[in-house]
Amino acid sequence: MLAGPAHSTVPVARGLPVASYGRRLGVLALAAALVLTAAGPGRSQVNPPLNVIIILADDLGYGDLSSYGHPNIRTPHLDRMAEEGQRWTSFYAGAPVCSPSRAALLTGRLPVRTGVYRHEPPDTGPQGGPGVFMNTAAAGLPLDEVTIAEMLKGRGYSTALVGKWHLGHLPTFMPDRQGFDEHYGLAYSNDMGLAPGVKGGRAIMMDPRVEYWTVPLLHNGKVIEQPIEQQTLTARYTEQSIRFIRAHRNRPFFLYVAHAMPHMPLFRSKKFENTSAAGIYGDVIEELDWSVGEILNELRTSGLDRNTLVVFTSDNGPWTLYDQHGGSAGPLRDGKGTTWEGGLRVPAIFWSPGRVQPRTVLDIGAILDLTPTIAALTGTPPPAGRPMDGVDLSPTLLQGAPSPRDTFAFWRDAELYAFRKGPWKAHFLTRGAYGRGPARVIHEVPELYHLGNDPGERWNVAAANPDVVRELTAAADAHRKSVTFGEPLIERRLPATAK
Amino acid sequence: MLAGPAHSTVPVARGLPVASYGRRLGVLALAAALVLTAAGPGRSQVNPPLNVIIILADDLGYGDLSSYGHPNIRTPHLDRMAEEGQRWTSFYAGAPVCSPSRAALLTGRLPVRTGVYRHEPPDTGPQGGPGVFMNTAAAGLPLDEVTIAEMLKGRGYSTALVGKWHLGHLPTFMPDRQGFDEHYGLAYSNDMGLAPGVKGGRAIMMDPRVEYWTVPLLHNGKVIEQPIEQQTLTARYTEQSIRFIRAHRNRPFFLYVAHAMPHMPLFRSKKFENTSAAGIYGDVIEELDWSVGEILNELRTSGLDRNTLVVFTSDNGPWTLYDQHGGSAGPLRDGKGTTWEGGLRVPAIFWSPGRVQPRTVLDIGAILDLTPTIAALTGTPPPAGRPMDGVDLSPTLLQGAPSPRDTFAFWRDAELYAFRKGPWKAHFLTRGAYGRGPARVIHEVPELYHLGNDPGERWNVAAANPDVVRELTAAADAHRKSVTFGEPLIERRLPATAK
Repeated sequence: MLAGPAHSTVPVARGLPVASYGRRLGVLALAAALVLTAAGPGRSQVNPPLNVIIILADDLGYGDLSSYGHPNIRTPHLDRMAEEGQRWTSFYAGAPVCSPSRAALLTGRLPVRTGVYRHEPPDTGPQGGPGVFMNTAAAGLPLDEVTIAEMLKGRGYSTALVGKWHLGHLPTFMPDRQGFDEHYGLAYSNDMGLAPGVKGGRAIMMDPRVEYWTVPLLHNGKVIEQPIEQQTLTARYTEQSIRFIRAHRNRPFFLYVAHAMPHMPLFRSKKFENTSAAGIYGDVIEELDWSVGEILNELRTSGLDRNTLVVFTSDNGPWTLYDQHGGSAGPLRDGKGTTWEGGLRVPAIFWSPGRVQPRTVLDIGAILDLTPTIAALTGTPPPAGRPMDGVDLSPTLLQGAPSPRDTFAFWRDAELYAFRKGPWKAHFLTRGAYGRGPARVIHEVPELYHLGNDPGERWNVAAANPDVVRELTAAADAHRKSVTFGEPLIERRLPATAK
Repeated sequence: MLAGPAHSTVPVARGLPVASYGRRLGVLALAAALVLTAAGPGRSQVNPPLNVIIILADDLGYGDLSSYGHPNIRTPHLDRMAEEGQRWTSFYAGAPVCSPSRAALLTGRLPVRTGVYRHEPPDTGPQGGPGVFMNTAAAGLPLDEVTIAEMLKGRGYSTALVGKWHLGHLPTFMPDRQGFDEHYGLAYSNDMGLAPGVKGGRAIMMDPRVEYWTVPLLHNGKVIEQPIEQQTLTARYTEQSIRFIRAHRNRPFFLYVAHAMPHMPLFRSKKFENTSAAGIYGDVIEELDWSVGEILNELRTSGLDRNTLVVFTSDNGPWTLYDQHGGSAGPLRDGKGTTWEGGLRVPAIFWSPGRVQPRTVLDIGAILDLTPTIAALTGTPPPAGRPMDGVDLSPTLLQGAPSPRDTFAFWRDAELYAFRKGPWKAHFLTRGAYGRGPARVIHEVPELYHLGNDPGERWNVAAANPDVVRELTAAADAHRKSVTFGEPLIERRLPATAK
């Protein structure tokens, strides 16, 4: 199974013209890299299937990396990854919160299809739960969904999740039931579970200490540490990732690194304490950046960089509830939980030297697209017999073609809040982040923004563009009608006695 | 005068360690460039004095370049300049509006010292004039001020201003009286002067046409075009700049390119019409980026890149009054006219291959620092016998040392609104942009922000940090007391008959 028969159908970018966005340095690096490859040691004569690594940050905002405009967080490794790879500036998470976004990432399907959504009755108040699996959840991602891990296992890949799962913490829903050979990490978020006598809320978030939380660290379903020394989690995830890469250097692998950070409570290792110019949040991001650098360097020194795709992105926008402990959406509006751009648009960097064309891509992409894109790049058939919401981005990655995606549907829970087509975005519903106002508003006339000249969604131009409003409303209606809803699973809870 | 005696004292960066922010590409380029230089043709055996080019955009916001985080304006030439040079992320304009900022740039002195400020009586209303020289002004930058052009003329430099002056349009105050051998451009802003029957304001700004404005184009004091074909201005400034560089390739030169754009009304040439993904504003910025690319390429192909410093920056933050015709401060608060970060913090890129160390600098710098920095880099004595508010940034540029500047004073008109020391910024007064609220507010307890973890000035932390408030208040008081005010000149107007 090492070299699958479908591999030869995968187009390879070598020799194709490189994007002309003035990135001469990128071109030089590419040329140098090609030379190195030609002479490189230890390369198999048969093209082995492409390895895949997805690195997912948790609640990282659009504006939190230096290469995405943060004025004082240093992210040299991610910046270099962006220079050598494709930096997407209009890339959307799978949902404005964690569990549904991760379900979308792993399946290429909308959360309302897979059931990883909340069917809260329309709520006109500012409150409302977060719409993710709590540590009392009785459900998880349905087992008949096909994850990227399962898809690639069918091609003989070894698979691992290092980090957060958050798609069902009961044994029947854990990563081993969804195609992962190994799991080292958390079953849900790092704030889910308080030590006896500790009161949740602002005070502990703003001054986090390990002993406040009782979240367990798991290894293949077994609790190996509780409470977790969260300060060392990023470093240990890095170590585990490198261990997995080394153990599988001679066979195809899929590694999904789902960091706990920068989800609150924030923790970083001693080495990064008070080292950034941007407070604890900056420290945390700079440690994540270090971690990415370690993984890419491992690939470079082992020669695996020539046959590995690495994707870096975030599950949703910044959690803005706790001031400087949350990230920044940069120029975008609002953050996590909302369907404003700040809620879903996230950094996204694709890296595969000699394969992914270095450039900045302004076109639309989405976490939903990872499944079909990875299917194409690895020459693996995508999951069959079910509607797929993602599209294959490989023509953009490999040849610099325009993105095949021209629309994006902004779902929140069970409702379609907004719809984007080209540069236009119409909001049919708006609502503040959970735990924050403003309350849910139904817009009889949708709000309309031109994200090209107004990425910050500052000037509603619906009145001047009634035709566009009509077109987007029709497109949104058609999309809504095309979706068959799964049974909503987020709110299925264990009986209180089992809590 | 071609090679001044002081030149040998100028430190040169070759062989010094390069910043390790993961910018391997920068290092490769540097190494490649050094090789090219060693073998390069037509280089003088004697080190000629460093040429200096300052490229100033007008009202460009902190967030308007791709390398500063704009999601859909393409600026490949400026991005490459930033990769090859130093990109400063905490660099301040000379004032939140045009004339005082330009006076600060050219003299290294605060506008309240040189007199290029307005002594408006404290105004609690939202309105108030813009605090710049109007086309009815009777004054200008005082002739006893020493500009960078005058300073460098004393070392035998040829000097030119291509673009906007805005420091007095009467013949006695024009660029030839302040050290410039040549001037091709505007005497003031591109919106100052309306054709008969045209009503100023929103409508014409949002749908600009050349014939609405009567601003004259000047060449050495003579009107050569009126009204100006503003669409072609950026292209013609580029052409004039390259002509000047070619004419002076064998002697030291100082070129100050002060673009009209992106000051409203917005214009761009046919070639850039509707070519960006960000509307007319994006088109305009992409043409400016093209212009920078043309100038840098001219330097590269002529070999002058090895002996020229190019600085790119903006005179103040984005003009937010006319929606998508104005720029964006990215993650920063507010814009032009205000003393929030968005009003004064601007992109700043220093480029001099083999001399300026490639890196991102998070430390504080200011337009005020250009005069002493250029003095040091060219081995020219700075203007003597007067207080200098700028500091010499050359240790940071050449050796990567921490910036010698640790404070910044935010003046608006005749008042010190805010003061920064390290990461802390205290606001004693706040006020919205002119033409926009909110009105001027005196803060009995200053507002305090930590710009490290809160560059967007979102969380006033004065209550939790009384010692910091006291320290910054004392530092601001000391600064205020140290300044001897010049006679305020902005409001001196010609008699109405002469208008």
